[in-house]
Amino acid sequence: MNEQLKHFIESNIPQVEAEMFALVEKIDAPADLKESMLYSLKAGGKRIRPLFVLAVLELYNKNLKEGLTVGSVIEMIHTYSLIHDDLPSMDNDDFRRGKPTNHKVYGEALATLAGDALNTLAFGILARMDVSAEKRIELVNLLSVAAGAEGMVGGQVLDMEGEKRQLNLAELEHVHINKTGALLRFSIEAGAVLADVTQEERTILKEYAHHIGLAFQIQDDILDIEGTTEELGKTAGKDVASDKSTYPALLSLDGAKEKLAEHYQHAINALEKLQVDVSLLREFAAYIVHRKN
Amino acid sequence: MNEQLKHFIESNIPQVEAEMFALVEKIDAPADLKESMLYSLKAGGKRIRPLFVLAVLELYNKNLKEGLTVGSVIEMIHTYSLIHDDLPSMDNDDFRRGKPTNHKVYGEALATLAGDALNTLAFGILARMDVSAEKRIELVNLLSVAAGAEGMVGGQVLDMEGEKRQLNLAELEHVHINKTGALLRFSIEAGAVLADVTQEERTILKEYAHHIGLAFQIQDDILDIEGTTEELGKTAGKDVASDKSTYPALLSLDGAKEKLAEHYQHAINALEKLQVDVSLLREFAAYIVHRKN
Repeated sequence: MNEQLKHFIESNIPQVEAEMFALVEKIDAPADLKESMLYSLKAGGKRIRPLFVLAVLELYNKNLKEGLTVGSVIEMIHTYSLIHDDLPSMDNDDFRRGKPTNHKVYGEALATLAGDALNTLAFGILARMDVSAEKRIELVNLLSVAAGAEGMVGGQVLDMEGEKRQLNLAELEHVHINKTGALLRFSIEAGAVLADVTQEERTILKEYAHHIGLAFQIQDDILDIEGTTEELGKTAGKDVASDKSTYPALLSLDGAKEKLAEHYQHAINALEKLQVDVSLLREFAAYIVHRKN
Repeated sequence: MNEQLKHFIESNIPQVEAEMFALVEKIDAPADLKESMLYSLKAGGKRIRPLFVLAVLELYNKNLKEGLTVGSVIEMIHTYSLIHDDLPSMDNDDFRRGKPTNHKVYGEALATLAGDALNTLAFGILARMDVSAEKRIELVNLLSVAAGAEGMVGGQVLDMEGEKRQLNLAELEHVHINKTGALLRFSIEAGAVLADVTQEERTILKEYAHHIGLAFQIQDDILDIEGTTEELGKTAGKDVASDKSTYPALLSLDGAKEKLAEHYQHAINALEKLQVDVSLLREFAAYIVHRKN
């Protein structure tokens, strides 16, 4: 990771986290529910989605303040999806980021409700932001599509089906365009909405986001094979053990790495079409494909 | 039930349901996810919340069209909460409205995700409505508060705590003001937003809604004792069997009926302060307290 990106990440993660925790701390809700919501939000993570919102604002020299709020909202949606994903009836994971999963600490009922509450809260926070009603409504609409049945939740359902039978490459790509891609694309598009970019710039940024989303997922699949449980903070080798449809399973490990390189290159190519200094987003792409967890 | 209310209910339920099913049918999502979402939406129910939205619009002689959309959204939120509530880790119910619960048909994982998808879709539909951005944002904000940790989900958490120890009356009221009351109040307030009523009228309508919400819950508790499983479409006597904190448990059955009559009277008194023909909302209140399921 180069110095520019390192500085960007290290200076912004604490700000995103402070904003996100404050947004939850201030709601008037039962203490154990808030505690359960905050437990998973505080469990760490790379905070890639909020950082993407901020990176787009940075690209256009805009104030990052509203980006911290939108980034927090996206991280809440991401976190609720992990809480529900980890439930015994879903992936049945006991550990996430090296810590016991939400339901292991608070029980399944409260974990389910903490996820529900984070999902619902996200939309309220967008509605209360200090930007025009038109922008807030656009963000609510885009997030609902990205996070719901037409995006993340739909991708999750397809992914479950992919555990029962081997998917082909087109199906696998479709899973990931929705399951992980939709929220990543929203992060970058939300940054574009806040930064008031042109429609043309937005289209280019979405193209970048599309390829980064797929690259992110392919690297995830590769790390499941090449990473260690310690590095990952979750059980390594789980995909292979469960015979899950993944890029390496479909294309071999080398084929998956080639596919990863292709998407990385497409993402970089998209950026070249923008008229601003894109070095931060270029470095971000490199970080996504080289990360070890 | 008088003829006016009977006609109002019978003519509007099919319209609400047609709108609600169409809103879900048209999304681009995995077939089994949509099927699971629609299964619970189509399982019936009294549709009281959408009817309240429409009743407020009717009170002010407004077009009901946008009310059908907002009513559908509220019914989606109500339905997702029932799907999650019925899960084995929560109330573990096998039947709802006389039909197998969502997870009994589709499995727990898909039921959890269908609930998540309905929750998320609700906000997107509000954002895409054909009213001003300001009104849409107000509805998103109010719904998020009513349905989330500060409202319905928070009430659900308190209710779970009430299954572990006997609550006092203030605590029990607090549970129901949130668990069932918040979404009922939102229904009436959403009608007020769409009908462009004055702040004063809105305050009066919210007062009516507050008492109707509590009356609704007290009658629910009474029906658990006096109703039959057949009438209710769910297991009767469950509260008593599980030693749950309820109004009859705290106040005796007669005491609960007195409390019900009090809230009914407060609701009626609030209506008298409005300068329009309130007969529909008055009849609605009577229906809530006399209903058998």
